[in-house]
Amino acid sequence: MEHSQIEIIRSESKKQKPQTNQLEFGRIFTNHMFIMDYSVDKGWHHPRITPYQPVSLDPAAMIFHYGQTVFEGLKAYRTKEDKILLFRPEKNMERLNLSNERICIPHIDEEFVLEALKQLISLEKDWVPSAEGTSLYIRPFIISTEPYLGVAASKTYRLMIILSPVGSYYKEGINPVRIYVERNYVRAVAGGTGKAKTAGNYAASLKAQEESEKIGYSQVLWLDGVEKRYIEEVGSMNIFFKINGEIVTPVLNGSILPGVTRDSVIQLLKHWGVPVSERRISIDEIYESYQKGWVEEIFGTGTAAVISPVGELNYEGEKLVINNGETGPIAKKLYETITNIQNGTEPDPFDWTIEVN
Amino acid sequence: MEHSQIEIIRSESKKQKPQTNQLEFGRIFTNHMFIMDYSVDKGWHHPRITPYQPVSLDPAAMIFHYGQTVFEGLKAYRTKEDKILLFRPEKNMERLNLSNERICIPHIDEEFVLEALKQLISLEKDWVPSAEGTSLYIRPFIISTEPYLGVAASKTYRLMIILSPVGSYYKEGINPVRIYVERNYVRAVAGGTGKAKTAGNYAASLKAQEESEKIGYSQVLWLDGVEKRYIEEVGSMNIFFKINGEIVTPVLNGSILPGVTRDSVIQLLKHWGVPVSERRISIDEIYESYQKGWVEEIFGTGTAAVISPVGELNYEGEKLVINNGETGPIAKKLYETITNIQNGTEPDPFDWTIEVN
Repeated sequence: MEHSQIEIIRSESKKQKPQTNQLEFGRIFTNHMFIMDYSVDKGWHHPRITPYQPVSLDPAAMIFHYGQTVFEGLKAYRTKEDKILLFRPEKNMERLNLSNERICIPHIDEEFVLEALKQLISLEKDWVPSAEGTSLYIRPFIISTEPYLGVAASKTYRLMIILSPVGSYYKEGINPVRIYVERNYVRAVAGGTGKAKTAGNYAASLKAQEESEKIGYSQVLWLDGVEKRYIEEVGSMNIFFKINGEIVTPVLNGSILPGVTRDSVIQLLKHWGVPVSERRISIDEIYESYQKGWVEEIFGTGTAAVISPVGELNYEGEKLVINNGETGPIAKKLYETITNIQNGTEPDPFDWTIEVN
Repeated sequence: MEHSQIEIIRSESKKQKPQTNQLEFGRIFTNHMFIMDYSVDKGWHHPRITPYQPVSLDPAAMIFHYGQTVFEGLKAYRTKEDKILLFRPEKNMERLNLSNERICIPHIDEEFVLEALKQLISLEKDWVPSAEGTSLYIRPFIISTEPYLGVAASKTYRLMIILSPVGSYYKEGINPVRIYVERNYVRAVAGGTGKAKTAGNYAASLKAQEESEKIGYSQVLWLDGVEKRYIEEVGSMNIFFKINGEIVTPVLNGSILPGVTRDSVIQLLKHWGVPVSERRISIDEIYESYQKGWVEEIFGTGTAAVISPVGELNYEGEKLVINNGETGPIAKKLYETITNIQNGTEPDPFDWTIEVN
C-alpha cells in the first residue's frame, strides 16, 4: 500500500493536554488514532487516521470469545531541540508479525504500518511531552472482528494505533522493586504463546500478580512451565542478572518475549566489552550464587520502565536482598545510556533512533 | 439482585428466523440479548434485556489488550410437547465463577444470572428450533472494559448473553473424526489457565488446529505441557477411551476444562454399571494398548457435539484406526441417551433438565 493512501479525517474537538504532573501510564489518549481493516478478499485495506473514537463490534465478534489478538508497545520522545524520535520501531513491526504468525493473524506490511505510525505521530506531535522521563506511548494492536462463535481463525480483523502521553516511570528517580518468585502459577510454556505479544499471556499473569501484591511484592518472577525451575521473565519484563562479574539473561526459548529493550541491553553491554551471555538460568543457580555473595545485580528490562532494578527476591519465604536493595552501577549506566539515546542527549552509535518529521 | 429488577427494552425490528436447513453453528443471533455491568462502587448492576446490538468500547478497553474475559456455552432444546428445556445450566453458572476466580473477574450471583438467562430465553422462545439435533446455543460472556493500558485487573466489566439457533452437529448422523496427536504446540499447562473457559486458551489452540487441518485432520489431541506425554483434551472437547472393557478419561488436573458433558457421561456410565475411572493416561499407554488390540473406542465430549467419536489417531505419522473407523456402541448409547434427555424424549433420572416457562 502506498503512503498517500492514508485518508485523514481530522478531529473537530481538541482535548486539553495534561500537565506534566498529571501524566501517568496509559489513561489519557490523544485526539486521533490510526485504523486499518482486513478481509479475506481485500487483504489489509482502508488505512485512515480518524478522531479517537469508540470501537463498535458485534457481541459475537471473535475478540470477545477466543482472544485472537496481538499488540505492541513503543514510545516517541521529544529532544531538547524539539525533534521527535522513535526508538527502534522497526523491531516492534517485526515482532508484531512474529506474534501474528503464532496467533494465526494475517501479516502486516511492516514498512507501511511504520509509515502510518509516523504520520499519526506527526499529526499529534504536540502531544509528545518534554519533561525528563516523559514520552508518548504508542500502542498498535490487532483484533479479530468476525461475528462467529466457531473456534477458528477470524476472517476479518482491525488494526489500530492509539497514543498516550505518559509520565516518568520513576517519579523519584530509578528505584529498586521487590519481587516474589512464583512457584504455583505459570505465565507461559514451551509450545504455548509466550513468545507472542498476545492478550492471553497477560490475562494468565493477573492472578499471580494480585496474590504477590497482597503480600507486599510489586511483581513476580516467572519460572518455566515445565520444570518450574528455569527463570523466564519478571512481571511483564525480561530479566538480567550480574553474577560474579558476568551478565546473564535467559536465552529466548519460545516462551519468553523477545524484548526490544532486552536486545538493546545485550548490544550495549557487548559494545562496552562487558561479558554477557544468554543461557538457561535456574532459580537454584541464583540461590546458590546468592549464598556465595556472587549476585551483584538483578534488573528487568522493558519499554515502560526501560530498566527496573530488583532490590529483593522472595524465594519460598526467604528474602534475598540484592546490592543492599539499591540500584547497581550496571543498571544505572544502562538506564542513563538508553534514555539518553532515546531523548537525543547522547550519541546513538547503533542508529537506533529515527526522527519523525 | 431481584428478578424484577431486569429492565426489558424490546426490539422494534424482528429478524427473519432461519429455515432448519440454513442453521449452522454460531452465525445467526436472535433479536434480544442480556446485558449487565460491573463497577467497583456499584458491583454488578443495571441488568437489562435489550435489542441485539453492537458493543461500543474505548479502543483502550482492556479486553482488546490483556484478554481478561471468560465465557460459557450451553443450549436450550424444544421438546415434542413444545416445552423449552435447559440442560444442567447451574453447572455453567458455577464454572463461570470458577473461570472468574482464575482470571480475576468479580464473581457473579449464579442464581440471578441463571434467572436472567431464563427470562431472555422465554422472550426468545420462538427461536428455539424443533428439528432433531437442533437447539438454541446460549453464550454468556464477561469482558473487561476499563480504558487503561496498565497490566492489572480491570475495574469495570460487562456481562452479556447472546443466543444463536444452531443446526445438528451431525448432518448425516453421528460420524467419527480423524485426530492428529499434537507434539509441538501446547494448549495449557499446570499453573496456567487451562481449567478456565477463557479466550487465551482458544487463541493458543488455533495454530495447531490450522496445521492439522492442512494435513487432513479435523482436530488435535492435546498432551500435557510439562512432559508432552499425558492426554488432556481433544480439540475443544474432553476425551474418553474404552480400553479393554474399562472407560477412562484424564483426571481434572488444573489444565483440563471441567466439562459439563464430561461430568454427565461419567454419571451415566456409573448409573449403567460400566466401569469408568478418571486418571492420568499417557499417549504411550494408548499406543501400547492399541498394539494389543485393547483400544475399543475413543470419543470426545462437549456441548456442541455432545459425543464425537474418534475414528483415527495420527501418532507421529502412524495411523491408529479405532473400531474400524466407526462409531462404537458406548459412544452411540451415550449420544442417544444424553440427546434424548436433553430433548425430553427419555426419562431424566438425574433431574438434569429444567424447564423455561
